[in-house]
Amino acid sequence: MKRSQRVGAICQILTEHPDKVFGLKYFCDKFSAAKSSISEDISDAKEAIRISGCGYIETISGASGGVKYVPDISEEKIKEIQEELCALLQENNRILGGGFLYTSDIMYNPAVVKGMAQIFAKKFRKSGADYVATVETKGIPLAFMTAQLLNIPSIVIRRETKISEGATVSINYFPGSSERLQKMSISKRAAAPGSKVLIIDDFMRGGGSIKGIAEIMSEVDIHVVGIGVAIASIEPKNKKVNEYFPILYLGEVNENTKEINASPNYLIF
Amino acid sequence: MKRSQRVGAICQILTEHPDKVFGLKYFCDKFSAAKSSISEDISDAKEAIRISGCGYIETISGASGGVKYVPDISEEKIKEIQEELCALLQENNRILGGGFLYTSDIMYNPAVVKGMAQIFAKKFRKSGADYVATVETKGIPLAFMTAQLLNIPSIVIRRETKISEGATVSINYFPGSSERLQKMSISKRAAAPGSKVLIIDDFMRGGGSIKGIAEIMSEVDIHVVGIGVAIASIEPKNKKVNEYFPILYLGEVNENTKEINASPNYLIF
Repeated sequence: MKRSQRVGAICQILTEHPDKVFGLKYFCDKFSAAKSSISEDISDAKEAIRISGCGYIETISGASGGVKYVPDISEEKIKEIQEELCALLQENNRILGGGFLYTSDIMYNPAVVKGMAQIFAKKFRKSGADYVATVETKGIPLAFMTAQLLNIPSIVIRRETKISEGATVSINYFPGSSERLQKMSISKRAAAPGSKVLIIDDFMRGGGSIKGIAEIMSEVDIHVVGIGVAIASIEPKNKKVNEYFPILYLGEVNENTKEINASPNYLIF
Repeated sequence: MKRSQRVGAICQILTEHPDKVFGLKYFCDKFSAAKSSISEDISDAKEAIRISGCGYIETISGASGGVKYVPDISEEKIKEIQEELCALLQENNRILGGGFLYTSDIMYNPAVVKGMAQIFAKKFRKSGADYVATVETKGIPLAFMTAQLLNIPSIVIRRETKISEGATVSINYFPGSSERLQKMSISKRAAAPGSKVLIIDDFMRGGGSIKGIAEIMSEVDIHVVGIGVAIASIEPKNKKVNEYFPILYLGEVNENTKEINASPNYLIF
């Protein structure tokens, strides 16, 4: 097997398993190669991945050490993703009336969601989160893909209690000022008390749902270590939560001119 | 830049973008290398990816040609995934009563869902599907990840109509023999009439939900080209749909002995 083929295979295996540690021995066995050769291969793989610009290889020392692939994106790439998202969101046929926008095509499209998940994974990699949590439905793909990049499980909070969730803890909350009381419920099995959770959602207006998630988490003794939302509406200015990171801000939606005003959050990092 | 580094970078870029075609020119520009060098690099990358065993590189000829990474898994790997899933599902603390099992930890864990999505992507790669569709909630991550591997968008059918879905088409259906009437609704914007769709869900007992999805699809003139379910219950033997592909079969769930009987579908291919 040629060196270039080994390096290619190492890059591919690491990329397929974000944040998973592979010992040198794994590659020695797989390629029937000496440790010294694999060490050189890995240093070439590091350079290869640095150049391709989607992440980097990290070396973990010690007995259980090895290398892992950390997905990462550059600040230019983040801006590019944000600007593409803005353009998508500003398409004038999204306006549904009542100031609502149709965004399911964005939130259910893996090619688009991946960019947003990469931004959140970069933002929250050091948060120490054990889980990524969201409330059903539209934020699930984004939360799930963020979890994948961070190599942790996700939790989905339900609107209604389901028999398949086992014993649950429920709360009632006000999603917005003028809306009626809503309910959310979490399975008691979803996460062990004392766990840390990152909240991810697709959209935030007043912050009622996010505050609801934070409340239900506190009921089951889970600590919130970060909040990321794909799109945050500028109005109302006073949100029910303070520290949150939107990828985009949504400004005025004009139903007459069909104009939608969206802008990137330039302060995300 | 060394050949091995270029090969590594090519492997990594292709792997990060399943099923997306990259022209040779893209790599020539990125690495400032001649077409002849890149051609050799790609043949090394092909071999590298073949050896790593997660997929293969396909060459597309013609003016818009180039290479793309097709995620793929071996039959041994499929069996391995199925057996790991069986072991997970047979953990006796999953029993909730009423024959229900807690599976949210499986269905929301990217590391587990990825294996199932790889199986479905292999199974349905040639189906010609334009979308992967599911009904909320627990099948969303699996449907979404299958869509990602097939490089197509996903569609989520809602239980209730939502203002943010725009105009919708709804149906009422019977999920099972003894259960009450349920509703599902799809946004008219979700897919163009004439599109082809692959249905993916986490669990199937009688097949009522899947039949509901097929019915609502036919209402909006979308053609179902395949059905995949993670877990299919053996009972009842008569399902409401005929052609479906489960990854696992769920047999008897004994609440007294806490035994759960699950087995791989060996006929998936």
